[in-house]
Amino acid sequence: MPSTDLLLTFNAGSSTIKIGIFAIDGAKARRIGKGVIDFRAEPLSLSLIKGSQTFEMPLRAKLTEDLHDVIDETFGRLGDHFDIAATRVAGHRVVHGGDRFTGPTTLDAATIDAVDALTPLAPLHQPQALRFIRALRRLKPHLAQTASFDTAFHATQDDLVRRFAIPRALHDEGVKRYGFHGLSYKFIAGELRRRAPRAAKTVVAHLGSGASLCALDQGVSRDCSMGFSTLDGIPMATRPGWLDPGVILHLAGEKKQSFSEIEDLLYHRSGLLGASGISADTRELLKDGRPEARQAIDLLTLRIAGEIGRMTATLGGLDAVIFTAGIGEHQPEIRAGVAKRLSWLGLAIDEKANAANDFTISTGESRIATHVIATNEEQVIADEALSILRGD
Amino acid sequence: MPSTDLLLTFNAGSSTIKIGIFAIDGAKARRIGKGVIDFRAEPLSLSLIKGSQTFEMPLRAKLTEDLHDVIDETFGRLGDHFDIAATRVAGHRVVHGGDRFTGPTTLDAATIDAVDALTPLAPLHQPQALRFIRALRRLKPHLAQTASFDTAFHATQDDLVRRFAIPRALHDEGVKRYGFHGLSYKFIAGELRRRAPRAAKTVVAHLGSGASLCALDQGVSRDCSMGFSTLDGIPMATRPGWLDPGVILHLAGEKKQSFSEIEDLLYHRSGLLGASGISADTRELLKDGRPEARQAIDLLTLRIAGEIGRMTATLGGLDAVIFTAGIGEHQPEIRAGVAKRLSWLGLAIDEKANAANDFTISTGESRIATHVIATNEEQVIADEALSILRGD
Repeated sequence: MPSTDLLLTFNAGSSTIKIGIFAIDGAKARRIGKGVIDFRAEPLSLSLIKGSQTFEMPLRAKLTEDLHDVIDETFGRLGDHFDIAATRVAGHRVVHGGDRFTGPTTLDAATIDAVDALTPLAPLHQPQALRFIRALRRLKPHLAQTASFDTAFHATQDDLVRRFAIPRALHDEGVKRYGFHGLSYKFIAGELRRRAPRAAKTVVAHLGSGASLCALDQGVSRDCSMGFSTLDGIPMATRPGWLDPGVILHLAGEKKQSFSEIEDLLYHRSGLLGASGISADTRELLKDGRPEARQAIDLLTLRIAGEIGRMTATLGGLDAVIFTAGIGEHQPEIRAGVAKRLSWLGLAIDEKANAANDFTISTGESRIATHVIATNEEQVIADEALSILRGD
Repeated sequence: MPSTDLLLTFNAGSSTIKIGIFAIDGAKARRIGKGVIDFRAEPLSLSLIKGSQTFEMPLRAKLTEDLHDVIDETFGRLGDHFDIAATRVAGHRVVHGGDRFTGPTTLDAATIDAVDALTPLAPLHQPQALRFIRALRRLKPHLAQTASFDTAFHATQDDLVRRFAIPRALHDEGVKRYGFHGLSYKFIAGELRRRAPRAAKTVVAHLGSGASLCALDQGVSRDCSMGFSTLDGIPMATRPGWLDPGVILHLAGEKKQSFSEIEDLLYHRSGLLGASGISADTRELLKDGRPEARQAIDLLTLRIAGEIGRMTATLGGLDAVIFTAGIGEHQPEIRAGVAKRLSWLGLAIDEKANAANDFTISTGESRIATHVIATNEEQVIADEALSILRGD
């Protein structure tokens, strides 16, 4: 029997690289394993899950700028468990596709340069994927590679929605609202088509340590709370979401903070961590009895509800609210807090269904259907890579 | 017959000083004249309106930092038309009252210092009123002076609504959402009590060259689109409103713009002017046939509608929308554009009533009452000054 063709997905973040191992099954990519390497702990190790088994595999390679040794050893370790020589394509998650990439792309010298040219739009995030893509290309020059972009799903948004009220020249050179978490929203849009086909105007709340909301009309992106950078929108683990631009002028002008101090403040010391002074993790805040913890949670639900209100105006109405990603899928208290603030829309949730993380958590009388759906960004990367491989 | 006691109001902005002349009529202040000096044109002149008469009076005084000569000559000119010696109190509009001033205050050495101490929170605006207050105090040391604050009316807002998701230490030292245009909103709240007493949950759109929205519940401020600075919220003549904080990091980090370049961009080159590339004035944009002009208007109505959606979530519902200030009172096209985007709330306006700038512009069937109300910030300054003078 010929060995099954494999497809790998790579999701390189600032502190981890997540690996997906998929079997190619005709036009379908079916996940058969997943792994993660945490860059925050050396010596490095690869945690691998295959079926019901978990393997913790120490790596000898040191973390270097070019990642060559880490990738080489990782492929070796993966080879102990999978027929890694049968890998046909590697799909990467890339944060920013700019205006150029409105869908996935095959990665060659020219497109890699084009992806790199977008680095000024995501200076903290774009280099992470690029470093990995280039290292893999050096190591396996004949392996097909593809990129799936966080921004691409939002290319359908109206030009007006993407604008800031700033000089047109800045807009024209790329200072506009792109939207992020597009792989997750694409997955959810697919699930909605299948499982809740009557919900036309929908807001999806992707609530992870990075978090955003997306307004969908018939599965098509119309608005996103994260726009130009990953800082805007709703409060996140350590990022603030909505912030008066005057606050930054105040920090720079009155408090004489440097650019890098302000950048560090906004990316790493704000959000739930800053607002609570306790933790960036909603689970810990929900357990904590102190009023500051409660306040951070309340600020989160207030801002989510407000953003759903704003997006309902973009959509011109609302049929459904979807919760997804870590917090959205597993934390009934957060969902209940948001729902309570939206009762004026006729949204009502069933406490028992909510506590059980059921698919439908709204009551039969609720004017707004409310669902919990597990997201799967890796599946979207794999599907997009396979579709390019097959020339679909 | 004894002469009527007078009350003067001063509204000192960056380019003009507006003067109100009021007769004190028992517990009421009744406007009997108004004047304006435009600092942008030298030689200076005082434009005065008294009843149906208009006087254009050239001033010999030069514009100096301490304003002494300008104020001295202005009082002389006012004395040609009013019994200015009978002035009992001068009331000033001051932008920022911080957490300390939750209502009007009498101005003495200590409170003037306290107002000055808030300058870091409004470095561009606080000095304008202070300069005028100090000059008048030197010139007329025995004249009672009072301050009315743009922020004070919003002191009723929930602590949570005022928070950003930033470190608590920054919040505690004053980086929070104060809200502005409070004198206008206080006036409108009074009008609503009298003229539309059944509207509990209301959003007021104060649309002038500076613009904001305020969420009122039973006349009490619950939210404001302008928060920490006068930059946030909806697009204004030259200020952007809502802006991803990452845009400022991009301008500073990638485009190497200086602090003063960014400040100038945000205060003077953004908003409708920036978005259209044509004009900061909605009247000109509405007349202009070019798509960029239309786009700036559409962006304005989109953002206003979105902010009304967000505020409806703060209020937990909506009974009425009020339009006020220059654009809000006189430009039916802007009101119609906003209303169209809010039809999902059950808001419907009557075209004829809207075109006529009627008090009620919503149809009889509209679920949201929609009104046009002329604002009068000077009346609030005068009422507050008189109430302090009388020891109410």
